[in-house]
Amino acid sequence: MKDKNSRGEPKKNTLRAAANSAAVKGGKKVNSVSLRHTPNKDKKAKTEKADKKTLKIRFLGGVGEIGKNMTALEFGKDIIIIDAGLTFPSENMPGVDLVIPDVTYLTQNKNKIRGIVITHGHEDHIGSLPYILKELSAPVFGTKITLTLIENKLKEQKINDAVLNCVNAGSIVKLGCFTIEFINVNHSIAGAVALSVTTPVGVVFHSGDFKIDYTPVAGDTMDLTRIAEIGKKGVLLLMADSTNVEREGFTMSESVVKDTLEHVFGDNVGRRLIIATFASNVHRLQQILDLAVKYKRKVAFSGRSMINIAEAAEKIGELRIPANLIIDVEKTGSFKDGQIVIVSTGTQGEPMSALTRMASGEFNKVKIGSNDTVVISASVIPGNEKMIYGVINNLYRLGAEVIYESLEPIHVSGHALRGELRTLHSLVKPKFFIPVHGEYRHLKKHARLAEEMGMRQSNIVIAEIGDTVETDGKNIRFGEKFPAGSRFVDGVGIDGADSFVLRDRIHLSEDGLLVAVVAVEELSATLSSVEIVSKGLVMTDSAIAEAKAALSNTLKQIDLRTVRDETELSGIIRRSLRNYVFKATKKNPMIIPIVMVV
Amino acid sequence: MKDKNSRGEPKKNTLRAAANSAAVKGGKKVNSVSLRHTPNKDKKAKTEKADKKTLKIRFLGGVGEIGKNMTALEFGKDIIIIDAGLTFPSENMPGVDLVIPDVTYLTQNKNKIRGIVITHGHEDHIGSLPYILKELSAPVFGTKITLTLIENKLKEQKINDAVLNCVNAGSIVKLGCFTIEFINVNHSIAGAVALSVTTPVGVVFHSGDFKIDYTPVAGDTMDLTRIAEIGKKGVLLLMADSTNVEREGFTMSESVVKDTLEHVFGDNVGRRLIIATFASNVHRLQQILDLAVKYKRKVAFSGRSMINIAEAAEKIGELRIPANLIIDVEKTGSFKDGQIVIVSTGTQGEPMSALTRMASGEFNKVKIGSNDTVVISASVIPGNEKMIYGVINNLYRLGAEVIYESLEPIHVSGHALRGELRTLHSLVKPKFFIPVHGEYRHLKKHARLAEEMGMRQSNIVIAEIGDTVETDGKNIRFGEKFPAGSRFVDGVGIDGADSFVLRDRIHLSEDGLLVAVVAVEELSATLSSVEIVSKGLVMTDSAIAEAKAALSNTLKQIDLRTVRDETELSGIIRRSLRNYVFKATKKNPMIIPIVMVV
Repeated sequence: MKDKNSRGEPKKNTLRAAANSAAVKGGKKVNSVSLRHTPNKDKKAKTEKADKKTLKIRFLGGVGEIGKNMTALEFGKDIIIIDAGLTFPSENMPGVDLVIPDVTYLTQNKNKIRGIVITHGHEDHIGSLPYILKELSAPVFGTKITLTLIENKLKEQKINDAVLNCVNAGSIVKLGCFTIEFINVNHSIAGAVALSVTTPVGVVFHSGDFKIDYTPVAGDTMDLTRIAEIGKKGVLLLMADSTNVEREGFTMSESVVKDTLEHVFGDNVGRRLIIATFASNVHRLQQILDLAVKYKRKVAFSGRSMINIAEAAEKIGELRIPANLIIDVEKTGSFKDGQIVIVSTGTQGEPMSALTRMASGEFNKVKIGSNDTVVISASVIPGNEKMIYGVINNLYRLGAEVIYESLEPIHVSGHALRGELRTLHSLVKPKFFIPVHGEYRHLKKHARLAEEMGMRQSNIVIAEIGDTVETDGKNIRFGEKFPAGSRFVDGVGIDGADSFVLRDRIHLSEDGLLVAVVAVEELSATLSSVEIVSKGLVMTDSAIAEAKAALSNTLKQIDLRTVRDETELSGIIRRSLRNYVFKATKKNPMIIPIVMVV
Repeated sequence: MKDKNSRGEPKKNTLRAAANSAAVKGGKKVNSVSLRHTPNKDKKAKTEKADKKTLKIRFLGGVGEIGKNMTALEFGKDIIIIDAGLTFPSENMPGVDLVIPDVTYLTQNKNKIRGIVITHGHEDHIGSLPYILKELSAPVFGTKITLTLIENKLKEQKINDAVLNCVNAGSIVKLGCFTIEFINVNHSIAGAVALSVTTPVGVVFHSGDFKIDYTPVAGDTMDLTRIAEIGKKGVLLLMADSTNVEREGFTMSESVVKDTLEHVFGDNVGRRLIIATFASNVHRLQQILDLAVKYKRKVAFSGRSMINIAEAAEKIGELRIPANLIIDVEKTGSFKDGQIVIVSTGTQGEPMSALTRMASGEFNKVKIGSNDTVVISASVIPGNEKMIYGVINNLYRLGAEVIYESLEPIHVSGHALRGELRTLHSLVKPKFFIPVHGEYRHLKKHARLAEEMGMRQSNIVIAEIGDTVETDGKNIRFGEKFPAGSRFVDGVGIDGADSFVLRDRIHLSEDGLLVAVVAVEELSATLSSVEIVSKGLVMTDSAIAEAKAALSNTLKQIDLRTVRDETELSGIIRRSLRNYVFKATKKNPMIIPIVMVV
């Protein structure tokens, strides 16, 4: 810890300072530029020339946060987009369905976009595609299972004109001045790839989400040989997954889960098995199907996404479903408990999922009892703890056995731990490094890991959403900020993250509201009537009656002819009520004055 | 896992069934009783006789949940209450300040209550006292530091007439037919005790929150010798803390934290130290003060509760504050960074806490920079992850070093792990066991731990809030259910957990609202005007204008003289708008119709 000062932050600050001054020069405050007698025209020409030699990496999401991954590489007249993910809303975003990146910059540069390259089919990498593709059209590139998952999503949103291009690990695609090679990696979904992008200034290596599984249950080990070759030829810039950088060591192999699942099947002869897992983890699904065959159980899928994805994965050959294995969940009643395994959604305690409804006794097709063993084969995504433990408590209350991660190795992470990150860094040997896919603390620690392996601090950049990082192959620095951030999908509407709507909702949820309707007679300009309605506020009828009387009194003392307009009257109503209500309730409800001229 | 069936649930079901049938007999459905020709009078007499020999344990909180611990022991005409805690609201309780137990049963039996016995001074054991003591008066018993913390709380709520009785480990207090002995235990607060309650049917041992620390930094090791003596004489019933029953092994000693803190001080010479910890953990506080003296740093407390509790703890001699050590936080600027340690609240990322405001740059007294090392000496309480990690990310953004639990042993748990639970069970050797202080999954696993140690399943009861467990010293079974649950403290109001207020708030926060004011002319019974206002809803002005037009049209087609009353008209308004708005927004906002007769 002692060498902290020697590392210091000045280098990074210099980068930022450069960026800020560049931004200022491009903006309105050009004093310093005029002082230097640099005419704007010359400057523009210089900038354009510099641009021609500069790769710009633009961060639209997935840095300073876990979720909605999206990065654009821009060189001259070409842009490629890496991933287009979404985030699920946090508790301070009530009523929001999904959070997607703000792609203003991309829509303003539509004509430059050569393609969208997808590393794998998880929601935080593909989830915003249905929205983005409505705003800009570009061909999409991904592996077979990734495209299958994307097709499912696009179909739901009735998008039929997307151009989807299938690639394999080893494929090479040329998009404008970029040449992209797809490289096999391991992850908690099949068909995950890293990207090696050859640009005019050098090779950019993007890890995507990855882990190194030396004994995968299906598919190949991450292609370390190819990565070593690419590294040997020289990589300009590495961008790598930081999700698990706080954990020392190496991830366990998916084979470990295989062993645990095998002993669960072996130990639960005669009992019904219910296994909750992510539908997209087809390798996990395959293991369950294989064990069901071995232990002579029928399999019933429960939950719409589980059924859809299993069907789609079978169609493209990613999932082998033996004949006569699958039965409808409604038919499980005609089999003995020991002959059934139900594979279900709901690993995160999602309120509408099959497992959550089973646990609360609201799922008619499956009634939980003391002869059930429920296996939750996933880890808890931070923020979902209360929901999933609520489900587990309810399952225990119904008499079931529950097996979950804190008790048995029933799930392994899909993200590299520090050991695997070191392997990647040592093979890629990049000149520059930008940690991605992490909150700020993860990015910071991933930067330190690179430093510990010998990289100079000045060669590492921690970027956030809206940052442009520029490199000409020799140096790396912050470029200008661009408009970026979050948008909320909310019913059919899409709304900016700084919206009043959300602030209003949070205000309403914490303090409730008071509607005050004041009717004013137009001709005489006298008060006709006052009505007050409260919602979401602990306030007795008599307190409301008092508030109403107080407001009436205030208004009667005013000559309404002297009040300029409804806005002024609304202000009077609001002030009068706010003080009264705070005294009575110690709350500050939203006050909605409505003036009716009758 | 195989012996699960042999354990089965029938025994427990039998207990519950007995309880239910008892409840029915006591209620209105007395058919079965009449069939048996048992006159009600006889039954009542019998029940009273049985009551005289039966100890009733009533669970008001802290079972099936972590938080708001409260249990009552009732025998004949005597009741004692063990603890009176609160819970902090979860995300589905917007605007709620605190959650406290529903004590309807106790207020209905005020005259029986002999005292409230407190095991230690954490919020989940003392937090509802200021509310409960307004509803029922009873003397309170606790150790010195516990009473000091209680006094602070009562003073805030302007309660001056409480009777507080100070006890020590080893004290014996007689309350009605109950004799209570206080026994020293270790926990993350000083002055924690377990209770050995001698009742007419046998000894009830209540662990309180505890751990076994063989090398405490202050005070004595948990009094295992006395517990062994009590156990040898014979204990009827054990109730014990289940918080950490999912973790194998033994908790680390507070001495481990001492070592970590020592190396933090040693490694950060020349840097400013900011340590966030729970104010009530006075032993932790003492270590920080001692190290400050050793490393020649001044200490500044930051955060109101930190200042209050430190002062109170010093006054009663629980905290030794060397002379000239403490300075005002505003004066830290006149010292070098290396001469300062700031001790702050905010370990859970509480929005208004000192640490959270430092991290967001809003705390004028302390500006965070790259020469600061921030230590968060606490674990994350489940549910607070996003808040505290948000604070950590912001501290890193400002250039600070951050040391927190996932990186270093900077905190140890205050709750016994499985190893310590086994020690307790083996010393107490109870006949019956009721696991407490845990969600259902914890209680279930604690019950299993007792079974694994040889206790018969029929001697273990898993109780939930509102359950009465009865024992005559020979048998244990469920008694009748009694009214119990949660109440919400919300501003100055206290509201039931099933309240419309909260449902309204959640509805408002997810879907927003639409107020529709319809003015009807009294004489002509014709529509005078319509006004629509929306909040928390993504809806354009033109969509609102359309909704207004649609509503006006609907109302114009109705002969308002045929509408019975305002309720009927409100229904028409609501239906008309609901359909229109759902089509336009795919949301179901709360619709508030207000009819004004003008």
